[in-house]
Amino acid sequence: MAHAAIDDRTAHSNLTKYEMSALAAEVGVSDGHPRQRATAKQLEILRSMPELFEQAGAERFEDLERRAQSVFLSSTGQHAAPVSAGRVLSCYSSSVVMDVVARTLASSFTRVGLVHPTFDNIPDILKSWGLKLVPLEEQPLMAGEITVAIAELDVVFVTTPNNPTGAYLSADALRSLAEQCTEAGVLLALDVCFRGFDRRFQYDNYALLDATGVQYVLIEDTGKLWPTSELKLGFVAFSANCPLALVDAMSDILLSVSPFVLALVSELAGEATRGGYDELHSLIRANRLRLTDALEGTPAQVVDTVSRVSVARIELPPDVSANATYRSLRAAGVHVLPCGPFHWAAQEEGERYIRVALGRDAALIETAAGRLGSFFGEERGDG
Amino acid sequence: MAHAAIDDRTAHSNLTKYEMSALAAEVGVSDGHPRQRATAKQLEILRSMPELFEQAGAERFEDLERRAQSVFLSSTGQHAAPVSAGRVLSCYSSSVVMDVVARTLASSFTRVGLVHPTFDNIPDILKSWGLKLVPLEEQPLMAGEITVAIAELDVVFVTTPNNPTGAYLSADALRSLAEQCTEAGVLLALDVCFRGFDRRFQYDNYALLDATGVQYVLIEDTGKLWPTSELKLGFVAFSANCPLALVDAMSDILLSVSPFVLALVSELAGEATRGGYDELHSLIRANRLRLTDALEGTPAQVVDTVSRVSVARIELPPDVSANATYRSLRAAGVHVLPCGPFHWAAQEEGERYIRVALGRDAALIETAAGRLGSFFGEERGDG
Repeated sequence: MAHAAIDDRTAHSNLTKYEMSALAAEVGVSDGHPRQRATAKQLEILRSMPELFEQAGAERFEDLERRAQSVFLSSTGQHAAPVSAGRVLSCYSSSVVMDVVARTLASSFTRVGLVHPTFDNIPDILKSWGLKLVPLEEQPLMAGEITVAIAELDVVFVTTPNNPTGAYLSADALRSLAEQCTEAGVLLALDVCFRGFDRRFQYDNYALLDATGVQYVLIEDTGKLWPTSELKLGFVAFSANCPLALVDAMSDILLSVSPFVLALVSELAGEATRGGYDELHSLIRANRLRLTDALEGTPAQVVDTVSRVSVARIELPPDVSANATYRSLRAAGVHVLPCGPFHWAAQEEGERYIRVALGRDAALIETAAGRLGSFFGEERGDG
Repeated sequence: MAHAAIDDRTAHSNLTKYEMSALAAEVGVSDGHPRQRATAKQLEILRSMPELFEQAGAERFEDLERRAQSVFLSSTGQHAAPVSAGRVLSCYSSSVVMDVVARTLASSFTRVGLVHPTFDNIPDILKSWGLKLVPLEEQPLMAGEITVAIAELDVVFVTTPNNPTGAYLSADALRSLAEQCTEAGVLLALDVCFRGFDRRFQYDNYALLDATGVQYVLIEDTGKLWPTSELKLGFVAFSANCPLALVDAMSDILLSVSPFVLALVSELAGEATRGGYDELHSLIRANRLRLTDALEGTPAQVVDTVSRVSVARIELPPDVSANATYRSLRAAGVHVLPCGPFHWAAQEEGERYIRVALGRDAALIETAAGRLGSFFGEERGDG
């Protein structure tokens, strides 16, 4: 138990509390944080932390920050991100960015169309600031289609690639959304925290969006990629015409991020470009396959098979609920996430799924996959 | 300039934006972050970062977190802090904690009595969540006196030691406040981020508060003390009877802080107890004296002479404004803070003061003090 309030109850009020209760788990495939062993190249960088610390202290802060932002954003294809224009702000994490963005949205807007499903801290943070949420079903949305009357929205918010499904916006779909938003005078907000896993979403979002004239804000993140003990950065990048008071709101929360973490991110993103992403993508692909193979022949199966993000969804047999499965697996020492809370507007839809994290060493995924295979194969669920 | 919006305008909308514009300053005594050189012992710890990183990865997260919280809180005398009860939550920074606390306050309460003056991001964050603020004048408040009708308040919020004045609550004053709050059914919130500088405020707050039965929440911080490139932690600690949904709100923002930063804080707090605080206090005391001496015989003077926090206030000559002084000094390469915004309910009261940061190497303070001495001595201000 991380905290007094994260107790042994088998239903928690949000997904993060499920993840907290699994931090010390024997087979922890609950949270989507990167917990695989560092690669040889990453270890080299981590071993140079004292030198990076010293160099970071000697470099002009602004230069260091812009360099880190540029290297990271370029590493995922975002060459036109407005770094030199000063429209990328750094922060401790993407969730703190989310909170800052929500605060600025709430001061100008009321109704946010939000992808459904998605990780529940996004609707929770938006709602905590008093914003009214309208669910936008993922499948049509990812095809560029807004299935509600856009005139009733102030903001369209899309997590792409999405968590937990890995669904993402193609360039055509993003352009279509941006054009509809521009036309309707609606702000487009994208959470692209899982971008690093999927090269298909690494076309230059900024170049595309700037060409449409849409008002946009993007949340970028280094935190899902590298096993750096939560040393990470979130960024918010915004269009020249973005009406949000992001600089003011961010300056209430921080003066600056850590120069040392900027230097570390810069090194890791450089290494990622030179082969690190390939290694990461191989690991995730292989882990997804391990899980898929282990469930073959059981009544449960890995879905979203084209997904490349570091989590996998498993569809449960028809008569088995996610929460019952979560409880049984937990009793067997395997911590997963029940998917109900992702479906923030219709939790019951998520009851057919559990989520398994893939950012783990192959051996741990082998163990988890083996236990899941036995569980579904032999017990056929016990819900 | 850190960002496009932090431009060369000479008046900014908050203090942090003044500080941002000074990040690359030649003589930067604007922000209150620790920017002195690391001591020999601190350097030893910083050089062991790769080993700390590895150890942190091997330790059970809960054990590591509790150890870091205990070592840090004990290092400033807070032995009764509810660490083992799970009522201390860790976070990236004290400002993020402030935001989380404000969110939970806003969901139950309306009116917050807040110390006046204090650093402006506190009222700004509280107001952003829709809370109504009532100024509580610092002098009577620090003597335990609430100068408004307490029945009209839901929360009493005190920064102690306060920024920028260094004023703090004695044990008697804190007990008196706690008793009044208990009596009136008002929550007591303390921001104790500068506690590490002042042994006079290191009596055990938690033991005292628990004995009164008051509902309380405290914001603790490692971030002002050690020059660790912004690797730091904020904590929120709360009473068993605290009605705020802090665990829920914090879990929307983070799953966990960095194990590596927990290990680092643990080492630094241990070293601080074994002599590091003595070194830090000597530096701050000597720097305050340097500034005081340099202004002797000029019409400006260091006030709050009994303060021990890492900032000093200078009272300006009668006909000189803080903003004009800020501008002139900035033109001379010395970045200070004008104190207007600290007086969040009556900015004009702060116009008589500027703030100078003392968490710097002696040589930098010598330079800053020399320039300030010349400025006030020869020019007698140019406002």
